[in-house]
Amino acid sequence: MGKVYLVGAGPGDPELLTVKAARILASAGIVLHDALVTPQVLALASPKARVIDVGKRCGQKLLTQEEINAYLVHAASHYGVVVRLKSGDPLIFGRAGEEIEALGNAGVDFEIVAGITSAVAAAAAARVSLTDRRFASQVLFTTAHRKGGGGIDLRWPRTLASDTTIAIYMPGGAYAELANALIENGLDPQTPCVIVSRAAQESQRVFRTGIAGLKDLNRVGAPALLIVGRVAQSAAQTITAEIWQQLREPAEERHIA
Amino acid sequence: MGKVYLVGAGPGDPELLTVKAARILASAGIVLHDALVTPQVLALASPKARVIDVGKRCGQKLLTQEEINAYLVHAASHYGVVVRLKSGDPLIFGRAGEEIEALGNAGVDFEIVAGITSAVAAAAAARVSLTDRRFASQVLFTTAHRKGGGGIDLRWPRTLASDTTIAIYMPGGAYAELANALIENGLDPQTPCVIVSRAAQESQRVFRTGIAGLKDLNRVGAPALLIVGRVAQSAAQTITAEIWQQLREPAEERHIA
Repeated sequence: MGKVYLVGAGPGDPELLTVKAARILASAGIVLHDALVTPQVLALASPKARVIDVGKRCGQKLLTQEEINAYLVHAASHYGVVVRLKSGDPLIFGRAGEEIEALGNAGVDFEIVAGITSAVAAAAAARVSLTDRRFASQVLFTTAHRKGGGGIDLRWPRTLASDTTIAIYMPGGAYAELANALIENGLDPQTPCVIVSRAAQESQRVFRTGIAGLKDLNRVGAPALLIVGRVAQSAAQTITAEIWQQLREPAEERHIA
Repeated sequence: MGKVYLVGAGPGDPELLTVKAARILASAGIVLHDALVTPQVLALASPKARVIDVGKRCGQKLLTQEEINAYLVHAASHYGVVVRLKSGDPLIFGRAGEEIEALGNAGVDFEIVAGITSAVAAAAAARVSLTDRRFASQVLFTTAHRKGGGGIDLRWPRTLASDTTIAIYMPGGAYAELANALIENGLDPQTPCVIVSRAAQESQRVFRTGIAGLKDLNRVGAPALLIVGRVAQSAAQTITAEIWQQLREPAEERHIA
């Protein structure tokens, strides 16, 4: 029996994998990866490894989560090192729960190797301390889920402390609708926001605005992450255009409001 | 002028630094680190680097945050590569906000290198998907702060969706008091909990219980992290003693309730 590693691939830059993740990838017999994992990260896999994209079509067939679970269990009996590679961290919006259960029920030896999750990568790109003690006491990692009826479902109450930073994964393309949902949920339209598109990739972009200004935001390259809260303002104040230009490896930035 | 890197050291295992963090550490002229950074991580620093613990006493003098800020700016003009090394991730409960502002105001070139934050490392150790879609839709990273009067200040309302996982950094030693605060804040005493002490270090321990069972928990080695929510139950069901024993690098585990 082999061992299955659920590995976080981080945001896309192969240097943002952990040392452990890179070592395990280099020894993999088979790699099952999501669609968002970048070619640069996949290039770290052993040249002998079978590399299968289970996030898109596999041959003619789209794999369901159940099929991925079954395939992981199957692979453990055919390969010494099985890597299940997920963008970001496997345990934050990575659907690892079902895979953990399937591996556990099948008695397969497995281990989880943490990765840099999108909110953390985005914060680093935008230079925003998510819990800057002057402006925030905690941070909520959430998504812009759609309800059955189609509207955006924000899962926190209006009474959430105003010093809570909100990091929204997968904000989607409907920023005007999202802005309205945030305002309807009690947030001040002037609340500072940072949107980071493709954090830590060459095409990274950082946008700064207020919630009201989100309405003017059209297309942002996926994957994107939206940080909402007073901490975002702090960054906007301290990061001047001059400082961005001093960066040896600059991030693009555009003010939209 | 040199460049300052605010670098996440992760939870303690040197293999859980990012590849980038390890590379930068190996080229550092000076390393300013917090008290929680492990000797194993510090061993990755260039042998030529000056290594200074700014989290404890530095010589006879305890450095304030303002002194650290000033020292970072000063170091940038004397060293090519200045590493400010913080356990976990610099932007989550890492007090990087003030340092970012000081570096920005001084016109010092700097960059943030993300790290594995404690909640993510703890989740990997306990095999808990923080946002397992069957049980949770979001996760709150918070702390067990003390109010001026001494009581524990939970900063989320009772009406926070019951499918929110709560990850509590620095839970402190008063687990009975914390359990009472959680129950007073509307959580069911049976809500599953996982406490991970020294995640990803050799002395790692994982404890599972309900909120009510926290009252029987005495001393847990710091740093610790407490995960509260239905996702913790999911892990407890799927991780049997047999599976733990199969692990090549086992985590200790003890059921306390």
